[in-house]
Amino acid sequence: MSDPPCDACAGVWPPADHFIADLGLSLAYLHDDQFFPGWTVLLFKRHATELFHLAPTERIQLMEEVSRLTKVLAETFQARKMNYELLGNQRPHIHWHLIPRLDHDPAPLEPVWRVPHDRIALSPEQVGTTISLIKKQL
Amino acid sequence: MSDPPCDACAGVWPPADHFIADLGLSLAYLHDDQFFPGWTVLLFKRHATELFHLAPTERIQLMEEVSRLTKVLAETFQARKMNYELLGNQRPHIHWHLIPRLDHDPAPLEPVWRVPHDRIALSPEQVGTTISLIKKQL
Repeated sequence: MSDPPCDACAGVWPPADHFIADLGLSLAYLHDDQFFPGWTVLLFKRHATELFHLAPTERIQLMEEVSRLTKVLAETFQARKMNYELLGNQRPHIHWHLIPRLDHDPAPLEPVWRVPHDRIALSPEQVGTTISLIKKQL
Repeated sequence: MSDPPCDACAGVWPPADHFIADLGLSLAYLHDDQFFPGWTVLLFKRHATELFHLAPTERIQLMEEVSRLTKVLAETFQARKMNYELLGNQRPHIHWHLIPRLDHDPAPLEPVWRVPHDRIALSPEQVGTTISLIKKQL
């Protein structure tokens, strides 16, 4: 009820230049840290904080969008496993972290949060190339 | 295709004495580390590794079971936020970590994996009490 101002609703986050596609009820963005290649954020368009707050029809469509995008990411980045995480501890606006985990991943058996690393920000050109790769499969 | 032997399919994991309920396509178990109170594992009954490998009808039902259980956990443990995680990096058999995050949580803004801690194993009596609390709302 008294959530802090929401930077997802304000359009401040995720960064607009990382936009991949409009999937219907959600928007896909390349995560701004590409230490794990292909890490993508799927943002629910309207403000809501928990899956169980959604109408069943919304929840079903949202999860179908999650599934469709995750399949594309798995294929594009040849993932050994996909990780799906809806946390929202810092930003309660529903967003999914969809993370391809690769065979040559620095810690393929661990959650990404257990892998200390410096953020890898791609150049604008690299962002464009990566987004094109994903969009080609969508 | 060549997954290692699956301890979820073998009935070895999660521990049978932590069983909460049969939700339909999935089984709920209290996680055997209760450092984060109420951490629950929802296990898909048949072997599958990714959401996008399921038939849409299965995926929809599974996610409705996730939503229903998460609502109960949020209410039972008075969560400030729920965390939903499907990883499977070590055990690729589909299972959801559903984790109530509390106001008095040691790091409410961080993923649980960033909180080093010793495992808290409840006594059999405490396990029973906690499971009863959850079942009362299901």
